[in-house]
Amino acid sequence: MTEISRRRLLTTAGTAGAAGLALGTAGGALAHAATTTRGAPALTSLGSTTVAFHGTHQPGITTPAQTHGHLVALDLAPGAGRRQAVELLRGWSGLAARLMAGEAPDDDTSVARDAGPSSLTVTIGLGHGFFDATDLVDARPTALDPLPAFSNDALDPDRSDGDLWLQIGADDALVAFGALRALQRAAAGTAAVRWQMTGFNRSPGATARPMTNRNLMGQVDGTNNPGPADDDFDERVFVPADGDPAWMAGGSYAVVRRIRMLLDDWERRTVGEQERVIGRRKSDGAPLTGGEETTPVDLEAVDDDGRPVIGANAHVRVSAPETNGGAAMLRRPFSFHDGFRGDGGPDAGLLFVCWQADPLRGFVPVQRKLDRGDALSEFVRHEASALFAVPGGAAEGEYVGQRLLEG
Amino acid sequence: MTEISRRRLLTTAGTAGAAGLALGTAGGALAHAATTTRGAPALTSLGSTTVAFHGTHQPGITTPAQTHGHLVALDLAPGAGRRQAVELLRGWSGLAARLMAGEAPDDDTSVARDAGPSSLTVTIGLGHGFFDATDLVDARPTALDPLPAFSNDALDPDRSDGDLWLQIGADDALVAFGALRALQRAAAGTAAVRWQMTGFNRSPGATARPMTNRNLMGQVDGTNNPGPADDDFDERVFVPADGDPAWMAGGSYAVVRRIRMLLDDWERRTVGEQERVIGRRKSDGAPLTGGEETTPVDLEAVDDDGRPVIGANAHVRVSAPETNGGAAMLRRPFSFHDGFRGDGGPDAGLLFVCWQADPLRGFVPVQRKLDRGDALSEFVRHEASALFAVPGGAAEGEYVGQRLLEG
Repeated sequence: MTEISRRRLLTTAGTAGAAGLALGTAGGALAHAATTTRGAPALTSLGSTTVAFHGTHQPGITTPAQTHGHLVALDLAPGAGRRQAVELLRGWSGLAARLMAGEAPDDDTSVARDAGPSSLTVTIGLGHGFFDATDLVDARPTALDPLPAFSNDALDPDRSDGDLWLQIGADDALVAFGALRALQRAAAGTAAVRWQMTGFNRSPGATARPMTNRNLMGQVDGTNNPGPADDDFDERVFVPADGDPAWMAGGSYAVVRRIRMLLDDWERRTVGEQERVIGRRKSDGAPLTGGEETTPVDLEAVDDDGRPVIGANAHVRVSAPETNGGAAMLRRPFSFHDGFRGDGGPDAGLLFVCWQADPLRGFVPVQRKLDRGDALSEFVRHEASALFAVPGGAAEGEYVGQRLLEG
Repeated sequence: MTEISRRRLLTTAGTAGAAGLALGTAGGALAHAATTTRGAPALTSLGSTTVAFHGTHQPGITTPAQTHGHLVALDLAPGAGRRQAVELLRGWSGLAARLMAGEAPDDDTSVARDAGPSSLTVTIGLGHGFFDATDLVDARPTALDPLPAFSNDALDPDRSDGDLWLQIGADDALVAFGALRALQRAAAGTAAVRWQMTGFNRSPGATARPMTNRNLMGQVDGTNNPGPADDDFDERVFVPADGDPAWMAGGSYAVVRRIRMLLDDWERRTVGEQERVIGRRKSDGAPLTGGEETTPVDLEAVDDDGRPVIGANAHVRVSAPETNGGAAMLRRPFSFHDGFRGDGGPDAGLLFVCWQADPLRGFVPVQRKLDRGDALSEFVRHEASALFAVPGGAAEGEYVGQRLLEG
């Protein structure tokens, strides 16, 4: 399926979802009430929306971010080699296609039973160690070289890296959990969970404002994200059809960072202080230089005293593509909240996931600048980090990674 | 507000939600797409639904269970006494009323900004230690006496008990998180978080089946729950208007248990084995003695060989009100999933919350029987436990607990 037809499919699916109006919202209201009143709920577009597994690119990259997400890294078992990796990736691909179509796995536990696929996506990535274990070191992309160390990193190795990666997203928590368990069972004996993180985004329908998501700092987050309509979107996000290595054509590289927010510190600052740290208004995400959320930031603007309106270390200046040689990546994060820490502060923040054709032209130059001069650094801690090669999408009858493993 | 008028209000709210059809679902679909495409989302009934804070009973008991929940226990700071408790409960009550109405707190962090109240509820409870710290031991209900020890308990004291308790629920994760943070800030200096747990339920609209929620075992869970339409519902769940102590009139007692599920063990069993453990069909929750989900279980039925269809230790038999002197409680749980444990198994299960007029006629007799003879015990671990007195709802101008603290 070409990129164009795939986008059309997504658009069509969205329209079909919106078309089932009367049934839709009535069902939403009733399904909710049904938890105590036993009404007659109906599957709304939230439940019935499907995302295609097969295509030029894997799902879960340009798919609108779902309400619930799981990120899971696995390590191949000692002794597991290329044969086992082939079986695993073939099995995962078949399972992902079934689950995303709303079908049950063979060993169904019924957790997701009765629910629609709820925009379920499963995205499969390969880490640096995968190529050692499978004796494919020669095929390992240089783009998978370990990320440079950043001075403010405080990384936990047990929650970093991994031979294999799964990104699971769905608009229903039980559907996402059911997929996680099914994929984990399918890996039994071949790969074991190394780390797993769970995140969330705003629920569809919770807000009336046509605005980007907010993060747990309360900040509008993702305004400058490239969109599929941008001329250079594919170039920035996906490895081209004639890219190197050839097996990564249509693929992308995912950088994953667990970024804890020091919310007690942050919330003690005034809104004015917070806005100067970011360079945007808190209320609507508009640049401090005026306009609305999507108005370009005027990095040259000065106030009446001739001082820059956007400070030298404001997050929006330091991370701006203009100041990073045009570097850009597609950010598609989830928030996380894993309870409280011993110090009483919340263990919460951002499961930052970004997508790019080449980390050395996406995440790395931006993070280098942020690491040195971002006013926001005082309020965040990068606690885990991983980098994965996410092969192009599988065609019908193909599995993810087949061009690498059988190329 | 009387109980009858409050129920009417809830019903009316539900109908109003369903009435906004065209705008509603279109908004749902577009809000979802907006995360990458900047559509024009609309607030659907999911976001706009409000639950009343003031009333005979506190919210969050008969309110349909929301998608996201936080349970938080706090301990009063050393030296904090009755005066501080009054200020805290007055502050929390005012804040809860504002947040539930969709208004921002004075120290708004914008986390929930743009979103509707999304069925937010805040429920406030008092633990055994609250009465010592506030010099109100004489007013402590005997129903707050510590629960008996159960032989299969493996309780973590750091995640059990607490002087104060908040139950927060909402259909949007950022709304729930914002409320949690605002309530925690309002307690600063007076009470500190002792433990906090986060849970979830199925999303409204994810399923078309008019059926009770499923738990992470994939089991239909809550079929025999009493409903507000039952003749004896109020009697079982709420302390009567002339109850003892008088300040608990309209109140209820909440038992909270963190019940971890041994899902690796459970999922290795066949569906037939699982069904015999529970006594119900996995597919639809119908009793093994036939019918549909809501068909009464026939505990007397025997098979062709004269053996009971529902085994002696089947969960549905051991927990049946008929075998527990009519004991009944309103269960209103959330599922939880806190990542993976060292043994590779998921740290997941049920945040069991049940409501009753008297724990000694609700949770305790049922759990005593389950503890001794429930086939399900092999697959679950009770890891934390708490019991709270949840005062009746506050009237307008009143705060939760006022009749205790100023009575």
